[in-house]
Order: sequence, then structure tokens, then C-alpha cells
Amino acid sequence: MANKTNKIRIGVDLGGTNLVAGIVNDNREITHKASIPTKIGEPYQVIIKDMAELVKKLVEDAGYQISDIESVGIGSPGAIDNKNGVVITASNLKFENAPVVEEFKKYINVPVDLENDANAAAYGEYKKTGDNCESFVMVTLGTGVGGGIVINGKIYRGFNGIGGEIGHVLLKQGGIPCPCGRTGCWEAYASATALIKQTKEAIKNHPESIMAKAEKVNGVTAFEAEKLGDKTAKEVVENYISYVSEGIIDIITLLQPNKILIGGGISNEGENLLNKINAYISSHLETYGVPQPEISIATLRNDAGIIGAAFAASDM
Amino acid sequence: MANKTNKIRIGVDLGGTNLVAGIVNDNREITHKASIPTKIGEPYQVIIKDMAELVKKLVEDAGYQISDIESVGIGSPGAIDNKNGVVITASNLKFENAPVVEEFKKYINVPVDLENDANAAAYGEYKKTGDNCESFVMVTLGTGVGGGIVINGKIYRGFNGIGGEIGHVLLKQGGIPCPCGRTGCWEAYASATALIKQTKEAIKNHPESIMAKAEKVNGVTAFEAEKLGDKTAKEVVENYISYVSEGIIDIITLLQPNKILIGGGISNEGENLLNKINAYISSHLETYGVPQPEISIATLRNDAGIIGAAFAASDM
Repeated sequence: MANKTNKIRIGVDLGGTNLVAGIVNDNREITHKASIPTKIGEPYQVIIKDMAELVKKLVEDAGYQISDIESVGIGSPGAIDNKNGVVITASNLKFENAPVVEEFKKYINVPVDLENDANAAAYGEYKKTGDNCESFVMVTLGTGVGGGIVINGKIYRGFNGIGGEIGHVLLKQGGIPCPCGRTGCWEAYASATALIKQTKEAIKNHPESIMAKAEKVNGVTAFEAEKLGDKTAKEVVENYISYVSEGIIDIITLLQPNKILIGGGISNEGENLLNKINAYISSHLETYGVPQPEISIATLRNDAGIIGAAFAASDM
Repeated sequence: MANKTNKIRIGVDLGGTNLVAGIVNDNREITHKASIPTKIGEPYQVIIKDMAELVKKLVEDAGYQISDIESVGIGSPGAIDNKNGVVITASNLKFENAPVVEEFKKYINVPVDLENDANAAAYGEYKKTGDNCESFVMVTLGTGVGGGIVINGKIYRGFNGIGGEIGHVLLKQGGIPCPCGRTGCWEAYASATALIKQTKEAIKNHPESIMAKAEKVNGVTAFEAEKLGDKTAKEVVENYISYVSEGIIDIITLLQPNKILIGGGISNEGENLLNKINAYISSHLETYGVPQPEISIATLRNDAGIIGAAFAASDM
């Protein structure tokens, strides 16, 4: 369970709903986990104090001491200054220029690394399945479209720390407004939120669709109805697959990574989703006869962020 | 003039019209240059033999011997297998799986590197002005939209060698067909070719525009007419600037490079172009208060490819 220095690595997910901390072993597994609600609206000092207490409790409950901690990695939403350990801005935490690392070290003085949560999740998946490949991209189809880029074993952040925002490249200039302020972002078409909107719109226009019987429309409604032969659902799914796939083609065109992993709620569709994406890409992307990136479904799910943050810190 | 080993580095531009070879000094300058027409339609063996003879003549005319050559870098259009020195496919050269490096070494047996010409040009600009910055992107607004990415001092090619195709990411899904086979690529909106089409279209719809008096519509027609207060030209320029800038915002969003250089024919507009792009980006990109990439006009122009190829080879 302990890593090679007999010390433990900790990963923390600083989420808008909960603070979740885990002890992560060398096999990229969370061996112990603890969580408490995030006191949204309180100043960062209160939330980080809670976080430090959560980590202390986690470590002690697992039979370790604070001195056994090798490093702590924190994944946070928002724009992150990794070099200085600062959350520049994170609207759902209501943080502005919060010096999270400095604050955390007041309680537990070990090496602490702060990462954007999507980057942390990407790094977790990379460590789990990336086989040290040269270039790796994680795409998360969830409430938004997030993700991260790992190049030569390191999270790619760009020179100012806020790079890798793959959800906010254009799918369609002048298209659907995106919560980020831009219009036509990939996220506005390919997120689970977008799919739900597309599904509801289709139900409105086609009340005969069996999707109209769904008690609550969610990210699987269209996929399930398509399997039952529903024509409207088939259209929704086909359009959605084209949105997702065109964004993936952009990533391939630009970065040609060894691997692309798809995570987030929509990835629960598993092989069905993957087959459709691969079919679309095969028929729309010129390969020039060279090997193509391997696309697969992410495996760590909600643990990816904690595992990735923990390794980002211990690999520092 | 000679580099630190007292040997000379050669760069070659394997173009669809001419073969151009140059001796490149440590100051990123071409000290001697020679060119001959490319015998398009002939097998690669004929063209590479011509290339080797051109290099021999260049070197001898400059007062050197073949044994003074340290390395030769070749920039070629098309999809390139850098590891094996093969042009996988290059439609304007009519090459398919041409083992260019192997063939060249039959005549001049020194270290030879083969790069995509856009990557070579990017590397040339990087070497000239990149100041060893961590991440660097070159955008070429010419017949197409080309460019290249340099990360940690190395040309970024992706795992299969064909990455960095920034001109073929989407601006508009389902938009204008692109010569590459995709529809809605950035290139289809932001190339000089696209601007000329947009200008011609505007003239057709607005025969009162002073642009209608142009003897030959080219990439500067709209910019020039706008300076004279022409309303139609202003619209053409504004739309074109939005196309160029939105693609640059994509690059920033994804890669946040230290520097972005703009080259190609359209970059002759210089400060006027740059100011418009910067103004558009300032009003459309969320900066989160962190430093932003520096955007400037490329300086090496047609020499960039030769200089970049030469350094790509000598830096191998």
C-alpha cells in the first residue's frame, strides 16, 4: 500500500459540493477515502482548514501519522496558477486569487501541488493506462467538456498555466452560446448538458418519440431509445456523435496523441459510444496510412482526479 | 559564417515549383542560396538526384567541400514520416512513400533530416525569435493555413509524425468544404485563398465598392480599400479578421503558447493585421488575469523553411 519511500501520497478533490481526500497507492488505487461537504460561500481560509482537517483524519483513521505523508495533490476547478499554488478564479467555489497551497501548508507542511481538476483527472488516467506514451489526451463529456493533455509525462499547461481547455475550442463560429462567454464551443454541443438539451428539443418536435415517455431526460435517454429503434433518438444520437467526433478529430489533427481517453457521465455508454465515435472518425479523417491514435473509454471514473492529483504531487 | 564545428549546415526547400538550397549560419541567416525548378511528374529518384547536385553546386560555389557539410535538413510539403525520412504523401510533388532521406544519402552521406515544410518554417521562426520559449506556434496565412508547434525546443509532430496541422481544425462544422476533404476547416476561411474568394464575392454583391476597380483581386485588395474608407471592404476585413482570430483563440485556449507568430502572404499587412487581430482577441478571450501569449508577425518570410530545416537537422 505504501509507496517506495514508505510514505503515503494524498490526493484531494476540491469540489463545489464535497471535499474528497484519498490515500493513493503505487498501483493507482485509492486505499482510503474520506469526504465532507464544501462550505461554499465561506472564505478560502475556512474551506482549506476543513480540507487539512479532513486529510489529518483520513491519515490517522488509516493508521498513519502526519509525518508519513510524502505529498498532497489538490485538484480544483477553475483557472489555476500551478507554479504559485493559487486558484486564480473558480466561480463554483467563489474563489478569487486564493493561495490554496500556502494556506494548506499552514496546517500540513509537506510538498503540495495544485492542479486544475480536469488536468488532474487526465494525469490520473494517464498514470493508470498511459503506459508512458509520449502524448495523451483525456476528454471528459460531463456537465461541461473538460480534459487535459499530457506530453512527455507531464501535464501540459501552457506557459501561463491555463492551457488544455479542450472544451472551449470552436465547433461552430457564431453557434450556440457557451457558459464560458464564447459562442460555438465544442462544450456547447458535446457535453452531457448539451445532449440533454438536444434530447429535450427533439422530444418537443417529435412527441411521438418513445423518449417522450422518459420520466426524466438525461444523458442516456437518447442512447437507450435508439437501441429500441426510435427514429428521433437515432437522429439525436447521430448528431451528438458527430459533435463529439468532430472535436476529437480536431484533437487528432492538431496533436496526434498516442491515446485519447473518453470519460465523464456520457462515457458510461461504453463500447456503444466508442464504436460510434470510431466509425464516424474512420469515415471522416484522412489517415495518410500512418498509425492512428487509440481511442478508449476512461476507467478511473470519479477517482481519476484524486489519483491524478496525488501523482502530480508525488511526481513533482 | 561557419558554425561552431567549422562545418556548414544546409537547408533545402523541396517545393512544388523550385528546389531551393541554402547554407545557414549560426545567426539564422542564409549566406548562400541556389535553386532549380522541380521536375514535377518525374519519380522521386530524379528529383532527389537534382537536389543532391544542387547542394553540391551550392557548397562548391561557396568555397566549401562536401566533407564540410555537417548536416542537411529538407522541408517538404505533405505528410512526413520524420523517423524514417519518408514523404508519405505529397500531392503537389506527386510523391507516395518516397524514401527521400535514404535516396539523398546515396549522393551525400551526412546526417539528413526530413520535416514537413510548415514545421520547418515554424522551427526556423522559433530559432530566430523564440528565445527558447517553452511553447511556440507559427501560423502561416498563405495559399492554405499552415503552421507548426514547437514545445520544449522540439518540433511537435505527435506520435505518428503528422500532428500540428493547425489549418485543419474546425472553424465551423458543416461549413465551407476544404481541399483536405473536411468541411469547415479554419483554412477554408482564413487562408489568403479564402480571403480572395470572400473579396470577389463582396465585389459581386457590391459593384459600387472601389474594390471592383482592382485589376486583379488578391490578398491585399480588401485591406487597401478599407484604408480608403470603403464600406464593403471594411466588412470583408472584419469578417476575415474574425476568422483568423477565432482560430488563434482556439490555439490559445488549447496550448497557451508563450508566442504565436503569423506568417504567410497575408502577414505582409504587418502592424495593421496584428492590431486588428489583437483587438479582436482582447474583446473575445477571457484572460483570467494571467499573462497572455505574445502575438507577432513572422520575420523570416520565404527563408523560414530553409533556415528551420537546416537547424532541425543540425539540432537532431
